Amino acid sequence: MDDKRPIIAVIGGSEPDKESLKIAEQVGRLIIERGAILITGGMGGVMLAASKGAHDAKGLVIGVLPGIDKNEANAYVDIPIVTGVGEARNSIITRTCDCAIAIDGSYGTLSEIAYCMIYRKPVIGINTWKIDAPITQVKSAQEAVDLAIKKIGT
Amino acid sequence: MDDKRPIIAVIGGSEPDKESLKIAEQVGRLIIERGAILITGGMGGVMLAASKGAHDAKGLVIGVLPGIDKNEANAYVDIPIVTGVGEARNSIITRTCDCAIAIDGSYGTLSEIAYCMIYRKPVIGINTWKIDAPITQVKSAQEAVDLAIKKIGT
Amino acid sequence: MDDKRPIIAVIGGSEPDKESLKIAEQVGRLIIERGAILITGGMGGVMLAASKGAHDAKGLVIGVLPGIDKNEANAYVDIPIVTGVGEARNSIITRTCDCAIAIDGSYGTLSEIAYCMIYRKPVIGINTWKIDAPITQVKSAQEAVDLAIKKIGT
Amino acid sequence: MDDKRPIIAVIGGSEPDKESLKIAEQVGRLIIERGAILITGGMGGVMLAASKGAHDAKGLVIGVLPGIDKNEANAYVDIPIVTGVGEARNSIITRTCDCAIAIDGSYGTLSEIAYCMIYRKPVIGINTWKIDAPITQVKSAQEAVDLAIKKIGT
Repeated sequence: MDDKRPIIAVIGGSEPDKESLKIAEQVGRLIIERGAILITGGMGGVMLAASKGAHDAKGLVIGVLPGIDKNEANAYVDIPIVTGVGEARNSIITRTCDCAIAIDGSYGTLSEIAYCMIYRKPVIGINTWKIDAPITQVKSAQEAVDLAIKKIGT
Repeated sequence: MDDKRPIIAVIGGSEPDKESLKIAEQVGRLIIERGAILITGGMGGVMLAASKGAHDAKGLVIGVLPGIDKNEANAYVDIPIVTGVGEARNSIITRTCDCAIAIDGSYGTLSEIAYCMIYRKPVIGINTWKIDAPITQVKSAQEAVDLAIKKIGT
Repeated sequence: MDDKRPIIAVIGGSEPDKESLKIAEQVGRLIIERGAILITGGMGGVMLAASKGAHDAKGLVIGVLPGIDKNEANAYVDIPIVTGVGEARNSIITRTCDCAIAIDGSYGTLSEIAYCMIYRKPVIGINTWKIDAPITQVKSAQEAVDLAIKKIGT
Repeated sequence: MDDKRPIIAVIGGSEPDKESLKIAEQVGRLIIERGAILITGGMGGVMLAASKGAHDAKGLVIGVLPGIDKNEANAYVDIPIVTGVGEARNSIITRTCDCAIAIDGSYGTLSEIAYCMIYRKPVIGINTWKIDAPITQVKSAQEAVDLAIKKIGT
């Protein structure tokens, strides 16, 4: 499997501020430019912005949906995984990714950060939850993706 | 369904300190004495201690197991729900309970607290995660269960 | 765990004929009279009838719900397990039970029979799917529950 | 979402005969040649053969794994979705696909056929379960994929 493209998750809020949206879109684009695949929860807000960035960079976007309708996916998802398991899909996103970048985010994002910790997946945070956990907090999309690629490589 | 017995979750660490274990056992006992059913993740540590307290008080103990073997349940579980969905079972515990009491706990507990917030279930904390969320922090088992019963009643 | 009460699943259709409903209610009652716990999918039809039989016999009824609302459970469920994972909950019912009795039933029941086979749980059928699988087909509620108890005991 | 590429599932046994493996590989290749994406359970047997066919045709292969280790995926999976939910992942494969082609197969395949029926996804069978359900039985890989594309289009 070592020759497979890495999969990076972008996790974050569905109602972020404008700055977070801008960063999420940059993160999505950079993930693709660095040769990785983007995975998100497939819905709106940070998930949509990252998907748009990845889509515009001609990359592959996986959306792991909570519901039962693939049409709930945002317009930039190439592969909607229709789980039908509700918020339990947060466990699937985090098991699937090699690294997660958290941007903004509410309790759904918190559950995903917690799952990343359980599954020992590195988490890089931008303007997100500050909790007692080894999340590397950075300021920019560039730093986040550089660090993600570095952590996956080691 | 209003005549059904309330279901209270005890969520917490698998390797807690002695004080947390003692409190968990008291909480388990008090949950039963107040007429509720106990639900936990069915494994060790805080889950086991609360189950023991409930069992000794002749109550009903549900253990929602991550694995595929009912024999993984601790000895005080009356009803092992064998999910086979791993840590995604944290979503099921929290959807099922009417209220959760968090004692000690690591990242699994954090994911459960996050799910409680998403599902709008009240969380009462004893010596647990301090995060930016409406968790009512208390000191004793008695306070925790009194508050849980009160929150369910409203 | 050997001292735990056995858990018997009743699986079956949500729109059965009257005869199947009558049998399901008898099966539910007999499961309790033989000292076991009833588990079903918690909804209507065969699930409701079996739950009613068990409830009337003062037994314990677990309903493993597909949705996110405990109030979807039929009126005879004592413990609604709110999975939120949709039809994937069929895997949980069958992993949890020691034996399953299938009465009538459509594709949901078929998925549960398939899962029972994967998980090596005995299935006893009454007026249900005839497929190439080791399902013991019987005619009456009494035969079904007698056989279930016998199979669990061995 | 109408402009998205269709996703076709190949479901089938992990220990098929040689003829089924050959057909599965052809089906995988044809799915790609017709512009669709392949989704399977990501493991061996029919899943592996179909993945190989799709991979050799330079297509995209999604493997929805039951376990927690992406390295369990067969060598031809491009995107391992690591569910950690065991056989409950059969519900996710069938919710995600637009159509399923069943080749050979045991009880896992039967559960997937049942889920397809519940979710109203067309199933095309080759040398697979004969049950009382609207499965279109065909003889060749070509017929199967032609029919799948036709059914998705309507």
